[in-house]
Amino acid sequence: MLNVRLFEMEKFLNTSYEEELTSRLQEAQEKLQTGSGAGGEFTGWVHLPESYDREEFARILAAAKRIQSDSQALVVVGIGGSYLGARGVIDCLCSPNYNLKKKSTPNVYFIGNGLSADALQETLDLVSDVDFSVNVISKSGTTTEPAVAFRFFREALEKKYGKEAAGRRIYATTDKARGALKSLADAEGWETFVVPDEIGGRYSVLTAVGLLPIAVAGVDIEALMAGAAEMMRTCARGGLDCPAWRYAAARYALYQAGRSVELLACYDPAFRFMSEWWKQLYGESEGKEGKGLFPASVDFTADLHSMGQYIQEGRRLMLETVVRLGASDSELRVPRDETDGDGLNFLAGETMDFIRDRAMEGTLLAHTEGGVPNLIVEADGKTPAALGQLIYFFEYACGLSGYLLGVNPFDQPGVEAYKKNMFALLGKPGYEQRRTELEAKLNR
Amino acid sequence: MLNVRLFEMEKFLNTSYEEELTSRLQEAQEKLQTGSGAGGEFTGWVHLPESYDREEFARILAAAKRIQSDSQALVVVGIGGSYLGARGVIDCLCSPNYNLKKKSTPNVYFIGNGLSADALQETLDLVSDVDFSVNVISKSGTTTEPAVAFRFFREALEKKYGKEAAGRRIYATTDKARGALKSLADAEGWETFVVPDEIGGRYSVLTAVGLLPIAVAGVDIEALMAGAAEMMRTCARGGLDCPAWRYAAARYALYQAGRSVELLACYDPAFRFMSEWWKQLYGESEGKEGKGLFPASVDFTADLHSMGQYIQEGRRLMLETVVRLGASDSELRVPRDETDGDGLNFLAGETMDFIRDRAMEGTLLAHTEGGVPNLIVEADGKTPAALGQLIYFFEYACGLSGYLLGVNPFDQPGVEAYKKNMFALLGKPGYEQRRTELEAKLNR
Repeated sequence: MLNVRLFEMEKFLNTSYEEELTSRLQEAQEKLQTGSGAGGEFTGWVHLPESYDREEFARILAAAKRIQSDSQALVVVGIGGSYLGARGVIDCLCSPNYNLKKKSTPNVYFIGNGLSADALQETLDLVSDVDFSVNVISKSGTTTEPAVAFRFFREALEKKYGKEAAGRRIYATTDKARGALKSLADAEGWETFVVPDEIGGRYSVLTAVGLLPIAVAGVDIEALMAGAAEMMRTCARGGLDCPAWRYAAARYALYQAGRSVELLACYDPAFRFMSEWWKQLYGESEGKEGKGLFPASVDFTADLHSMGQYIQEGRRLMLETVVRLGASDSELRVPRDETDGDGLNFLAGETMDFIRDRAMEGTLLAHTEGGVPNLIVEADGKTPAALGQLIYFFEYACGLSGYLLGVNPFDQPGVEAYKKNMFALLGKPGYEQRRTELEAKLNR
Repeated sequence: MLNVRLFEMEKFLNTSYEEELTSRLQEAQEKLQTGSGAGGEFTGWVHLPESYDREEFARILAAAKRIQSDSQALVVVGIGGSYLGARGVIDCLCSPNYNLKKKSTPNVYFIGNGLSADALQETLDLVSDVDFSVNVISKSGTTTEPAVAFRFFREALEKKYGKEAAGRRIYATTDKARGALKSLADAEGWETFVVPDEIGGRYSVLTAVGLLPIAVAGVDIEALMAGAAEMMRTCARGGLDCPAWRYAAARYALYQAGRSVELLACYDPAFRFMSEWWKQLYGESEGKEGKGLFPASVDFTADLHSMGQYIQEGRRLMLETVVRLGASDSELRVPRDETDGDGLNFLAGETMDFIRDRAMEGTLLAHTEGGVPNLIVEADGKTPAALGQLIYFFEYACGLSGYLLGVNPFDQPGVEAYKKNMFALLGKPGYEQRRTELEAKLNR
C-alpha cells in the first residue's frame, strides 16, 4: 500500500502541526465525501473507482481491442486533462520509449495539445502509411487546439478510408448529451464515451478520457481501477494515518511556514508526464486568489546535474516531494571491468535499482541538510494497481489541500483570460471591440 | 537578429532601472570579456565561436559522417551539460519525434543521464539489432551515471563487433590529457574529442560535447557556430541595446523587486529540452548562497491548460520569459468543415502559425494584466544559425546575471553533496565513517 513518509519534518515544522490541522482536515474530508464544499458539483471522481459505469467500461475494453486489431496507431486528440493523464500513465507503465519499442499494441500519438504546425505535420506523416484510428477527447468539441487538430485527422482518415469506414475509426469522448462534438458524433454515427459532468478535466484520467488510450497501449485498466478503489477506501476513512491527509497537512503547513514552490521529484524518467499531470492537478486546483504552491518537477538523477545546485544552495523557496516507484521491470547488474579505469568495480554485480535507491537516500539527506523539507511518497510498485493508488491519492490530497487553502479546488476561472484575447485577435465574430483594444495595447 | 522585447515593463519596474544598472553591467561585461571575475578561468566559452579549434571541428564533421555511414543509431552517454545541450538542439531543430521519423541520419539515444534500469534495458534493446556507435561524454570518466551506462554499452559493442571493431565505434569526448576516460581511450585507441578545461559543462554545448551528436543528427553545425559568432560580436559590444544586457538587467531588476521564479515559455513543443538546458544554465549558475531566481518552464499552449490557471491567478511569484522561435517548417492551413460544428470556420484557410501567434499575443496581454511581467526573446527563426544566436545569448546573459547577483556563475559547489552521500551509502572504499553516520540518520 502507498505510504507517505515525512523525513526529519521536526526540522521545519512544529511537531504538533498535524494535530492542529485535524479539525480542518476533517471538515475538508466531509466536503469531499458529501460534495458539500465549494465546487462540490465536481466531486464525482471521489466515488468513481466504485461507482463507474460498468457498461461503458466494457465498451472501452472492446473498443481498445478493436483498435488493437485494426490499427497500428491511435491518434489521441486532446489538451490539458484530456491529454496529460493518459500520456502520464502510458509513459510511466509502458515507457517514454513506447512508440519506439517493438510491441504488439498500436503506437499512441498525442496531438491537439498545442498549436505547433510541425507537430501536426509530423504526426500526419507518422500515420500516413499505417492503419490508424482517432480518439478525439473534448467535453464541448469547441476548444481551439483539439478542434483544429481533429479537422486535420478527420480529413486524413476520410481520405484514406472513405467517409463511412473512417467513421468506424473515430472514437469521441465527450459530453453525454450536449455540445458540438456530441452532436457531430451522433450525426455521423461515431462511437462515443462520456466526459462526466461531475468530474473536471484534471480529475478525469480514470474516466473514458484516460482509460481508452491507456487500454489501447495494453495497460490493465481493471487493475488501475482496483488500485484506485483501494486508495479510495483508505481515503474515505481519513484520519492522521491516511496518506492523503498526511501529505495535504505537511504541504499546507510548509506553505504556511513560507514555502512557495513544491518540487515533485522522481528517480524514474518514465514519470516525467505523470509529473506534468500532477502540475495541472495542483496548479489548477490551488493557483487562484493569489494563493498556492507553485508546482515544478524534476527528473532525478538527471536533474541533480542541472537543478541540483539550486535545490542544494539556492533560495530556500522549496519543499520537495519525492515519488518512489519501487522496483524496475529490468534487473540489470553492473558489469565488472578488469581495468577498473572508472573506479566503479566496487559496484560490479550490484543492480541498478540498488544504486538508484542509494542515490535517492543520499539526496534526501543532502537536500534536508541543505534546508529543503522532503516528503516521500512510496508507491506500491510500478504497476497499474500501484499507479491507480497513486493517482487517487494525489487527487484526494489535492481536494483536501484546496479546502485547507480556502479555495475552490474544482474551478479554473483564470484559464479563460488568454482564450478570450486569442479569439479577439483571431478575429472571431463577436469580439470586434475587444480586438481593437488589444491591438492598440500590442502596438503601443 | 535575435531581439529582446520588454512588454509594459513600466507596470512592474521603475523606468530608469536599466540606466541605474549600467555601471554594474559594464563591470560584469569586463569580467566576462577579460576573464577577470569570479570563476574567470571558466570563461572560455566567451570567445569560443571564433576561437574554436578548426582541426577538431573538421574531425567532428568527419566522425559524424562516418557514424552516419556505418550506424543506424548513435548512443550518447552523458549527464547534465554532457546531455541537455545536444538533446535540446536535436529536439528543437530535428523534432522531438526525430527517432520516430523517416530520415537518412541515425537515431540518437541519450543514456547515462540517470540510474533507471528500465531506460538502460530499453536502449540496449533498441540497438540490439542495428549497427550503432557510442559517444561517451565525461570530463573525468568517473561520474557514476555515465560511467555505469558506458560499461553496458561498451560490453554490448564488444559482444557485437569484437573488441577491435568495437573500438572504431567508440568516440570519447573527455579531458584533453588527464582522467580515467582519456587514459582508457588512449590505451584502447578510441577517437577522442576535447571537453575544454576553461568551459564548464553547462556552457559546453558549442564544443565537441554538443557538436558531435548534433552533427550526427544532420544539423548544420557550421551555421550553428556562425549564429553564435554573430551574437558573440553583438555581446562583445555590450550596451543597453545589447539583447543580453537587456535580458540580464530586466530579470535582475525583477528579482530585486521580489520575483522569485522565472518561467521560460515557448509555443513550440520541440523546445522542451532547450528549456531543460536553460534551467541547468541558470539554476546552476545563479542558485547559490541562498540566491537566484528559481528556473521553471512551460510548453505552450499545452500548459496554458495546466499551469495557465496558476500563472494567471496564483501567487505572484513569477516573471515569464517567452521564447518566440518564428515560422514553423510546415505551413499547414486549417481545413474548412461544411457543417462547422466546432464553430472554427472563421479560421479556415489560416495557417497554424497565424493562430499560434495570436495565442501568444493574447497570452502576453492576459498574463501581463494578471500581474506577471513578460520578457520576449524573439529568435531569428527556427534554424541552426538562429539557435546558435539564442544559445550564446542565453549563456552571455547568464554570465552577466551571475555577476549582477554577486555570485560566481561558473562553479557548482552544491552538486557534490548528494554524490558524497551516495558514495558513502553505496559502500565506496574510503567513505566508511560517513556511511555509518548517514545510515543512522536514515534509520532514525
